[in-house]
Amino acid sequence: MKTLNVDLGARSYPIHIGSGLLNDPAPLAPHLRGQRLVVVSNETVAPLHGDRLRALLDGHPVTWIDLPDGERFKTLATVESILTRMLEARLDRGSTLIAFGGGVVGDIAGFAAAIYQRGIDFIQVPTTLLSQVDSSVGGKTGVNHPLGKNMIGAFHQPRAVIIDIDTLRTLPVRELRAGVAEVIKYGLIQDPGFFASLEAHIDRLLALEPEIVIEAIHRSCACKAEVVAADERESGRRALLNLGHTFGHAIETGMGYGQWLHGEAVGTGMAMAARMSEAMGWLDPTARQRAEDLIARAGLQLHPPAEIDAARFRELMAIDKKVMDGRLRLVLLKAIGAAVVTAEFPAEALAATLPATTPVAAGAD
Amino acid sequence: MKTLNVDLGARSYPIHIGSGLLNDPAPLAPHLRGQRLVVVSNETVAPLHGDRLRALLDGHPVTWIDLPDGERFKTLATVESILTRMLEARLDRGSTLIAFGGGVVGDIAGFAAAIYQRGIDFIQVPTTLLSQVDSSVGGKTGVNHPLGKNMIGAFHQPRAVIIDIDTLRTLPVRELRAGVAEVIKYGLIQDPGFFASLEAHIDRLLALEPEIVIEAIHRSCACKAEVVAADERESGRRALLNLGHTFGHAIETGMGYGQWLHGEAVGTGMAMAARMSEAMGWLDPTARQRAEDLIARAGLQLHPPAEIDAARFRELMAIDKKVMDGRLRLVLLKAIGAAVVTAEFPAEALAATLPATTPVAAGAD
Repeated sequence: MKTLNVDLGARSYPIHIGSGLLNDPAPLAPHLRGQRLVVVSNETVAPLHGDRLRALLDGHPVTWIDLPDGERFKTLATVESILTRMLEARLDRGSTLIAFGGGVVGDIAGFAAAIYQRGIDFIQVPTTLLSQVDSSVGGKTGVNHPLGKNMIGAFHQPRAVIIDIDTLRTLPVRELRAGVAEVIKYGLIQDPGFFASLEAHIDRLLALEPEIVIEAIHRSCACKAEVVAADERESGRRALLNLGHTFGHAIETGMGYGQWLHGEAVGTGMAMAARMSEAMGWLDPTARQRAEDLIARAGLQLHPPAEIDAARFRELMAIDKKVMDGRLRLVLLKAIGAAVVTAEFPAEALAATLPATTPVAAGAD
Repeated sequence: MKTLNVDLGARSYPIHIGSGLLNDPAPLAPHLRGQRLVVVSNETVAPLHGDRLRALLDGHPVTWIDLPDGERFKTLATVESILTRMLEARLDRGSTLIAFGGGVVGDIAGFAAAIYQRGIDFIQVPTTLLSQVDSSVGGKTGVNHPLGKNMIGAFHQPRAVIIDIDTLRTLPVRELRAGVAEVIKYGLIQDPGFFASLEAHIDRLLALEPEIVIEAIHRSCACKAEVVAADERESGRRALLNLGHTFGHAIETGMGYGQWLHGEAVGTGMAMAARMSEAMGWLDPTARQRAEDLIARAGLQLHPPAEIDAARFRELMAIDKKVMDGRLRLVLLKAIGAAVVTAEFPAEALAATLPATTPVAAGAD
């Protein structure tokens, strides 16, 4: 087992990463504050791995809530249904919530913990690669609104993150690839050495070799933990973690939630960011090619779907949270391992990156 | 104008108290971050005082939302409707929300600010005495759930609190008395000198003499600010502010939201807490009598409504947030100006405080 710490003063917490952690009560036990517990999982994860978690909670009265699976249930209505169950079970402010599933479960359940009686403790037990390297760390919780993704939410840090990589064995390959997109992201943003090691080992990562998987998750979480510790509420540096996300959110929203996985959209968004960075003269062609090659080797798309034209892209990006006072801010690359946030970019560079606008048909002669 | 500061490090903020503040742009101006603003008010306050606030916001694009008036609209559905309006208006993370109304408006609007894009700035402009001395200070925001009051919410501190006492001239007398209940509370909890001055001046306070009103609000806010600074998230001392609230919440919920005003229920709850403290031998009869007399002079009830029997009281109190790990905690008095939180009390003292249980009818002979 590897352990690292997210350093946030009184709200610091450990991330434990290993194989077989769901068979071992030790990592979880110190964080089970209060007697009554609530587990929020979903209909896919609970049948596969629920028995092992249940065994670890033996002796506690547990309210177990299985959500339907899918991003389309990441709504305020789902959160309200969880809060109702928690109130019916008489959970109090000293109770602990455990989020057991992928990023959607973690976001919804973490937000329920954030607003139940103005906030109770929660523990992340992420079961997908994407949630293990990204959403379970850093305290971002929330749900979607019909007008935009993650528009409703709170910053609420977990008390611990327990990552058992054995859960990845049951993960569909599409979701594995989506998770690898976020792993690649850390290399692109700030760790050229990690990027190079991913170039060397991506096939072994996709084949789930344990030592490679643990190392990739550890390095990703360390990267994220460092950024989060420096900028918990995303006023500055944390925004770098959104590389590929502004383009990606536009793809997710434009296609309808759940059609593209978040990580798939981020993978494509990173390729778009790399090309835009090249168009601005920031990223040299070799580096842009390396970025695209690794994204492609992970099984991700390099170009957005044809259904979303440039005008729709602009409209979807305008509602993104990275807009400040009406100005669109993008995360772009100066090199492999060197990202910057900027609102200063030529309109032509963005236009060159978005899908070509359908030419107006010539008039009839 | 009097000003005091709530000392919370990077989240510190000023409270400005005076007459005519809604005619003066100076107190508000430094806190209007971002270009776009949203004002959340209600159908009662906006027609009375809205023009003056609008004039202060001249030059900003303003989305103005008037909620229906009343505690029964303090729901997650109302929050969702606000979030939708904010998204439609393209408000971003740099926008500022202004809560303009009483405690219900402040709680709802503050919660909307807390969860809109994971939190945006907000300013409290409270227009009722209760919200001026209590709910607008300290960052507690939230809404009710059918199973309990304030069960959904967040801690989210305002950037400033602007209190114009002129708004009290249009306040119904019942609401004024409800606000005075919370003013008395500060004296009872920790300030015997303030309690004595209220005994001397309560009639002038109820008559809205400006210097008395400003002084009472200033001293109440100073008391609250000190407690909040010491214990922002209510892990300890802040719980003292709940004097009268556990009994009071039971009355509010038991009678149906909106039948009893919050402050009215707190006034009665404080009288119950005083009697229970006397029953435990903590409070001497003279002090108990002084507490009851001042509460009665404020026009508040000393006894709970006959509709709620002891069994229903216990049931309603069991779901209160002051329950920790299944144990009911109450705020009780050792003296005028000395409150304590305790889970250690004899069952008989509580039984003596609750309404007499209806005796079981004797069997037919």
